[in-house]
Amino acid sequence: MPHARVATFGEIMLRLSPPGHQRFRQAHDFRVEYGGGESNVAVSLANFGLDVRFVTRLPANDIGDCALYALRGAGIDTSHVVRGGKRLGIYFLEKGAVQRGSKVVYDREDSGMATLRPGQIDWDRAFDGVTWFHWTGITPALSQSAADACREACREASARGITISVDLNHREKLWQYGKSPREVMPELIEYCDLIVGGAREAASYFDIQGEDFADVARQLQQRFPKARRIATTLRETLSASHNTYSGLLWDGEELHAAPVYQLTHIVDRVGGGDSFMGGLIYGLITWPEEPATALRFATAASALKHTIIGDVNLVTVEEVVNLMEGDASGRVSR
Amino acid sequence: MPHARVATFGEIMLRLSPPGHQRFRQAHDFRVEYGGGESNVAVSLANFGLDVRFVTRLPANDIGDCALYALRGAGIDTSHVVRGGKRLGIYFLEKGAVQRGSKVVYDREDSGMATLRPGQIDWDRAFDGVTWFHWTGITPALSQSAADACREACREASARGITISVDLNHREKLWQYGKSPREVMPELIEYCDLIVGGAREAASYFDIQGEDFADVARQLQQRFPKARRIATTLRETLSASHNTYSGLLWDGEELHAAPVYQLTHIVDRVGGGDSFMGGLIYGLITWPEEPATALRFATAASALKHTIIGDVNLVTVEEVVNLMEGDASGRVSR
Amino acid sequence: MPHARVATFGEIMLRLSPPGHQRFRQAHDFRVEYGGGESNVAVSLANFGLDVRFVTRLPANDIGDCALYALRGAGIDTSHVVRGGKRLGIYFLEKGAVQRGSKVVYDREDSGMATLRPGQIDWDRAFDGVTWFHWTGITPALSQSAADACREACREASARGITISVDLNHREKLWQYGKSPREVMPELIEYCDLIVGGAREAASYFDIQGEDFADVARQLQQRFPKARRIATTLRETLSASHNTYSGLLWDGEELHAAPVYQLTHIVDRVGGGDSFMGGLIYGLITWPEEPATALRFATAASALKHTIIGDVNLVTVEEVVNLMEGDASGRVSR
Amino acid sequence: MPHARVATFGEIMLRLSPPGHQRFRQAHDFRVEYGGGESNVAVSLANFGLDVRFVTRLPANDIGDCALYALRGAGIDTSHVVRGGKRLGIYFLEKGAVQRGSKVVYDREDSGMATLRPGQIDWDRAFDGVTWFHWTGITPALSQSAADACREACREASARGITISVDLNHREKLWQYGKSPREVMPELIEYCDLIVGGAREAASYFDIQGEDFADVARQLQQRFPKARRIATTLRETLSASHNTYSGLLWDGEELHAAPVYQLTHIVDRVGGGDSFMGGLIYGLITWPEEPATALRFATAASALKHTIIGDVNLVTVEEVVNLMEGDASGRVSR
Amino acid sequence: MPHARVATFGEIMLRLSPPGHQRFRQAHDFRVEYGGGESNVAVSLANFGLDVRFVTRLPANDIGDCALYALRGAGIDTSHVVRGGKRLGIYFLEKGAVQRGSKVVYDREDSGMATLRPGQIDWDRAFDGVTWFHWTGITPALSQSAADACREACREASARGITISVDLNHREKLWQYGKSPREVMPELIEYCDLIVGGAREAASYFDIQGEDFADVARQLQQRFPKARRIATTLRETLSASHNTYSGLLWDGEELHAAPVYQLTHIVDRVGGGDSFMGGLIYGLITWPEEPATALRFATAASALKHTIIGDVNLVTVEEVVNLMEGDASGRVSR
Amino acid sequence: MPHARVATFGEIMLRLSPPGHQRFRQAHDFRVEYGGGESNVAVSLANFGLDVRFVTRLPANDIGDCALYALRGAGIDTSHVVRGGKRLGIYFLEKGAVQRGSKVVYDREDSGMATLRPGQIDWDRAFDGVTWFHWTGITPALSQSAADACREACREASARGITISVDLNHREKLWQYGKSPREVMPELIEYCDLIVGGAREAASYFDIQGEDFADVARQLQQRFPKARRIATTLRETLSASHNTYSGLLWDGEELHAAPVYQLTHIVDRVGGGDSFMGGLIYGLITWPEEPATALRFATAASALKHTIIGDVNLVTVEEVVNLMEGDASGRVSR
Repeated sequence: MPHARVATFGEIMLRLSPPGHQRFRQAHDFRVEYGGGESNVAVSLANFGLDVRFVTRLPANDIGDCALYALRGAGIDTSHVVRGGKRLGIYFLEKGAVQRGSKVVYDREDSGMATLRPGQIDWDRAFDGVTWFHWTGITPALSQSAADACREACREASARGITISVDLNHREKLWQYGKSPREVMPELIEYCDLIVGGAREAASYFDIQGEDFADVARQLQQRFPKARRIATTLRETLSASHNTYSGLLWDGEELHAAPVYQLTHIVDRVGGGDSFMGGLIYGLITWPEEPATALRFATAASALKHTIIGDVNLVTVEEVVNLMEGDASGRVSR
Repeated sequence: MPHARVATFGEIMLRLSPPGHQRFRQAHDFRVEYGGGESNVAVSLANFGLDVRFVTRLPANDIGDCALYALRGAGIDTSHVVRGGKRLGIYFLEKGAVQRGSKVVYDREDSGMATLRPGQIDWDRAFDGVTWFHWTGITPALSQSAADACREACREASARGITISVDLNHREKLWQYGKSPREVMPELIEYCDLIVGGAREAASYFDIQGEDFADVARQLQQRFPKARRIATTLRETLSASHNTYSGLLWDGEELHAAPVYQLTHIVDRVGGGDSFMGGLIYGLITWPEEPATALRFATAASALKHTIIGDVNLVTVEEVVNLMEGDASGRVSR
Repeated sequence: MPHARVATFGEIMLRLSPPGHQRFRQAHDFRVEYGGGESNVAVSLANFGLDVRFVTRLPANDIGDCALYALRGAGIDTSHVVRGGKRLGIYFLEKGAVQRGSKVVYDREDSGMATLRPGQIDWDRAFDGVTWFHWTGITPALSQSAADACREACREASARGITISVDLNHREKLWQYGKSPREVMPELIEYCDLIVGGAREAASYFDIQGEDFADVARQLQQRFPKARRIATTLRETLSASHNTYSGLLWDGEELHAAPVYQLTHIVDRVGGGDSFMGGLIYGLITWPEEPATALRFATAASALKHTIIGDVNLVTVEEVVNLMEGDASGRVSR
Repeated sequence: MPHARVATFGEIMLRLSPPGHQRFRQAHDFRVEYGGGESNVAVSLANFGLDVRFVTRLPANDIGDCALYALRGAGIDTSHVVRGGKRLGIYFLEKGAVQRGSKVVYDREDSGMATLRPGQIDWDRAFDGVTWFHWTGITPALSQSAADACREACREASARGITISVDLNHREKLWQYGKSPREVMPELIEYCDLIVGGAREAASYFDIQGEDFADVARQLQQRFPKARRIATTLRETLSASHNTYSGLLWDGEELHAAPVYQLTHIVDRVGGGDSFMGGLIYGLITWPEEPATALRFATAASALKHTIIGDVNLVTVEEVVNLMEGDASGRVSR
Repeated sequence: MPHARVATFGEIMLRLSPPGHQRFRQAHDFRVEYGGGESNVAVSLANFGLDVRFVTRLPANDIGDCALYALRGAGIDTSHVVRGGKRLGIYFLEKGAVQRGSKVVYDREDSGMATLRPGQIDWDRAFDGVTWFHWTGITPALSQSAADACREACREASARGITISVDLNHREKLWQYGKSPREVMPELIEYCDLIVGGAREAASYFDIQGEDFADVARQLQQRFPKARRIATTLRETLSASHNTYSGLLWDGEELHAAPVYQLTHIVDRVGGGDSFMGGLIYGLITWPEEPATALRFATAASALKHTIIGDVNLVTVEEVVNLMEGDASGRVSR
Repeated sequence: MPHARVATFGEIMLRLSPPGHQRFRQAHDFRVEYGGGESNVAVSLANFGLDVRFVTRLPANDIGDCALYALRGAGIDTSHVVRGGKRLGIYFLEKGAVQRGSKVVYDREDSGMATLRPGQIDWDRAFDGVTWFHWTGITPALSQSAADACREACREASARGITISVDLNHREKLWQYGKSPREVMPELIEYCDLIVGGAREAASYFDIQGEDFADVARQLQQRFPKARRIATTLRETLSASHNTYSGLLWDGEELHAAPVYQLTHIVDRVGGGDSFMGGLIYGLITWPEEPATALRFATAASALKHTIIGDVNLVTVEEVVNLMEGDASGRVSR
């Protein structure tokens, strides 16, 4: 197991979803889970055996406690979670099938994390012994104060020489507080050693257009020279039930491509990108000079995620390596 | 939203189905739903925003009440439902998979609707303001008295100049009361402006054989000149889990064909025809002079139905139009 | 219905599985079933209308009672089940999807059946009127005493002129008691009239290598001349959700091949081999001189099993014959 | 275990009930069980270790099969069940609480059993080796033909010297076929050795009024001199959740009274009377000359029934004897 | 059925509760229901057969739609619901037992109703034909704009001569917008003909202290002379599982007391007060000059509510009258 | 929050229980939980905010992992859990009601903990910073090696000056390895500062008979002079649904008695003693010189446990103190 301590920082939400393929209006029960981009990455890393902590702000009520128990049960260090704010953000998820897409309804305004302000996290303690810091484009999209807190985190991490990764993760329905991503993101991305994101984010955040991912990645790297590696996932959505899935990584010199997985019977595609991110961080920590290996690990991990209900990727290194080495047959293991 | 008031008339049943793919004998719980050809059409239309009422006869007991609550919850006007008869009809549904077909066991004899007699519905009130009336071949198959009541309904609708549609919907196991469809159906079909049905029904009901649907439709129109449009669904059952699906419409001059949908992971195919019918009625009300558009709307609506558990099609106009305009990718809508 | 009485002999276990595609750690409920290779065959035969009894040893506690009720409910004669031993064996099953394989965790040591000793079954009574005896390679793999009891059973059956079938069914994780299959199995197989097994078992048990199944089967028959027929299943695991499936039978002169089924949406593949075995026994009893027919019945039965949750194949002769005669469309039966 | 073979005869129905305390209209699932007065008695006797068969007529469809599997799973001999008729009777049960009583909606007309006719049961086979025959007042209330078949059964049993018991079990909502109980029941009761019923039935069936149960029992015995013992249950319904419960037995000379049980947290009271009847039959077979002991066994058995969901009493002799001997503490048994 | 049309006005929320007695942190599913003080009253009235409409503001998203479907399914006229605002208010409910009380966590800020402003409801249409208007102390506690809208509603109702009722319903955790109830409530109460509330509300809202309820009611009436009748519920909480329950009504001259119900096995006590209010409105409409009868109806209705899961009281007039006339035995109704 | 670090040591098992009040044979699903005497105490202490670790040996398989995740999710330090052994112990729990007692079937032989040997735990690390060590009489009852490991733990704790508590917890069905408790327990108890146990254990383990608990406690203290405090629970089992509950504590000078709680609607009584133990440890750490306060805290904590499903007591200090200070009303907390 590699030697590292990772901190991820962001919002965890209550996820409420009708069972099976029920539409919202058919549901008399909602399945209850807790997830968010950055905590999902933390769960992946804990399952891969890394020492990982999650930093966030949770309301001091029973629902906030539930999120905390979920994180602890996944083996994540929660001792740097601060409590406060009015509520836990919620998202409602209706799972589609075939021609009917899945549907997400967000109800996350005014959450503890959205109202986090700089100074509320004790970064000296939160970054103690930390070697890798991960954040995503969701946090600065929540509110001005969350964007400010995110900047503080990046600065503090950078000052300590911590490796920084970001998942650009653009969500148009966020960014409601009067700033555009182009005003906020560039300054934050300058701190990052690893960027995950595609043409869509490059265009929205930095007005970078490219012919293909290699072109976009090259431009990104020119603009953000600290970013040694730039990666993206490739998903083709044939239907809500069947996608193809792969990933690309630009290491400054070469473009690496992962195999393409046929996800023919998707169980849950939410958290797919986070599982790629988690796999990539694990991969780059484990094989720091083998980005192609890390990419293949990330893509295999993410393929497996699509077979697991919930936001988080509950797989072991052994399971990912088994798939990465080519056994995609899904045989019974007895 | 188009200006119209639709009345549908027929039987609603209690549907009892084992969860998931369980066989009947494995079930310790039955999922409870309420559905029937004509009420399923009404639910589609209510979801599309139309003013719709359902006319039937329900037993005056708690189980009849349950069916009533289900209809109301779907936004259907139930003020013309009459109460009486001994029982609510029941059907048991076992959902198949791959090579194992689904199985339906009917227990619908002596229901309130099967024992309905002419004169029990106050058609003056039930047809007040109504512009479209829909019935199916199931009602005259239930009993002599139900066939008589159906004839009364058609006559009353016709007298008021209401547009009449019928889904021929042949079920061999019905028609147990001593009459054959050929003795009963022709008189009823003469009232209809829109016929949905295929070669099978044309042969069983009217002894019409044809080379293809266009041929059958032409012959039907010759025999029933009021029927301005004749449509059918096209389903290829590759397995219980994977069908292809499309539709055809003959408008008296031209044969229109809808795109073919690959229904690769069917959630529930019961009510597929009803969802086509509902889509077609909505389509012809909305685009009265664009039958090809109406057909494409109907087929897209019906494709979506196959992703929804239960008899009824819980989709909005916006969702159907989105698919009809070509987005079959099933992407997550956030 | 053919005239025969079948006895099967082996271990039945408590099967505990998370609902749907949940991983073990996500499960807050386990679905409860009872199954095992030989009792699964008995259930198939009972469903096909045969007179069948299951012989085993169950602990004299409530959990042993539950297994007994499950067998009775399937229509199996349990009057030759003896009670004793400390516990019912358990297996935990996690159902995979696509690239993630299913996972089985066994907890079956020291079960009533594993601690069965020769002399504990009254074979005079248990074999009364019996015409066919079935056992599998699992029983002699459990313990020395179970292997001894298995030898006793074969000897007793043979002495009464009962037809004997075996499913070689190799499980590497068993055979923990200090003997290898090569020391134990040959003597037992000499009693058998019908062998089901493939190249893997032939190699592990008898050190027989072959170019293809026909070659292996010929060698097996040379070594075990009583074995008139030798059959195997053919499964290609494209993914955990999609397999292809067929079967072969060598009748001493000719190699028969069944059609290949596309199992595109597998519901539960555990018990697939047992359902083939059950179909083959039924087939050979019903069409004793038509091994190709029996093979086709067995393969069709087993294809249907993959659509049914649980270890056992809950299908009727009529349903199997329907598929065997070519209707793989999975149409709704109303 | 006493030496005896019991046959019970009557209707088994599909029982559908909302989970927990839900009202019908709240239910999206119905719990599925199979029960009826006479089959409930059979289940009790099978659990007490007696050899018991149930005689009825079930429709030849999947739902009829389900009832058959349920009976078999309880260890009842079903080889004398005949198949025929259109449907399995159904009853819907809504479980009350405190001031809200439970509610039963019957949908049992035209069931296989209600349309049974004399001659359809082969009583020579069905009564082979039988020493005790049990029926209830429900069967003759179903239809003229069921009443006729019941008379045939009593006559055949009587001709073979079989002990006959009856549970009078008056249900006012039945008896819809044009006869009153007073026209039908007396002739049938003349065959009976044991009558269970109270003042209500004595009045409705035989126009017998009495000061108390002893008085009623004495009059019943005068009128039906074959009835050696007459028993009744005593239930005080404090609320739907709390009843008191006891029993009385008149043995021709003496009135025996059981202890009064406080049923303070009722789980399911349906089948309470049947569990008393089952206990009494077992008791009188086991202790034929100790009617007071039999009565105490019956009452204790029935008290336990109220803690078990479903129609049937799933308790062992050991459990009943433990309560009957005074341990009502409900301690944990480890 | 009395001739009347009732409008209730307020907030409906999504209610999420762990199944059974689970604590929040044990829940992997939440039961989904929709309820709120004023809509709960509307449901009661619809069940009693009254013509009732509910006026509120729901967000224009899928979760708002779900609340709308729930209301429609209960038979309430929703044509005066306006759509807008960001979110549907939520409350989380953990059901206690014995010494552990139930727990409510509110997450209702910024709901569509809390951000309703005067002028958004078209009262001309909403009050068309309305004879009774009901509101509660919750609405003015939500926000300044909701309090303003509530004042507008009262003024509009009053101007049309509509009878007005209020449930004072004090919730300390609300009133967060900078006003105290004493500043807001008196002006609103002046419009009311019927007040339901107790000593706690009289003190909090109006600084009225009294020796007993009669004293408080007299003082309230002096201060608010339009209030012809003043009622309250009386609940003694022996434990979370067992309460006693009754009601009092002061009619300006006399104090009427209802019987005391022993609620020994409470299923769900949320909505208890709303069911009393619904019963009282129905009672006073039906028996306008028999306030004691109305009170007894209200109290019996509310006793029954405690046996029903969810916020709303799903009982009929017949069921209430049956209890009100003294049958509290909870017998099975067959 | 008091300053302390507690280690508990023992076996955690998989608990499988039918839902609600179902009997084992009715269950098609088992509720899955993880519990055991010593880990239950650890969960209580974690909920009370203490720093607590659990020391055990878990099999290195998926089921062992599940137990680990459950412990982590409860906030327990699991870094001293060792992995090994064949299996996780299991217990099956059937929940009784009223006169029917709950039933436990153990299947715990050969578990990882039962096969633990001295030397397998690194007590230097496991006791690092630990101030309180807790074990129970179950561990030495499992096997000779577990008893030896328990002796080792006590000796190591004692050598480090750690306070030691024991719950005597006699289970007759254990102690199958050839030693009696009287041979094993006295030596272990000599290390203990706090003993929880009653007359039954005093008799079985030490042959101490007493007139009452005070007498027994005095004798225990004479024999084990290190035991400064001796406590016991008092439970009267009126029925499976209703117990009374209290506790006593002898502090060497005085006998303290807690109030008696009426547990009128028990949800789950398993783990009741463990919740008392957890409360007592917390109480004595918090109020070291107020044993009467600690006893009242322990008894109130344990009363609350009976309202919570599962082995463990999910309550906070605030909730316990609230009850301990006299509010047993179970009011709704909003």
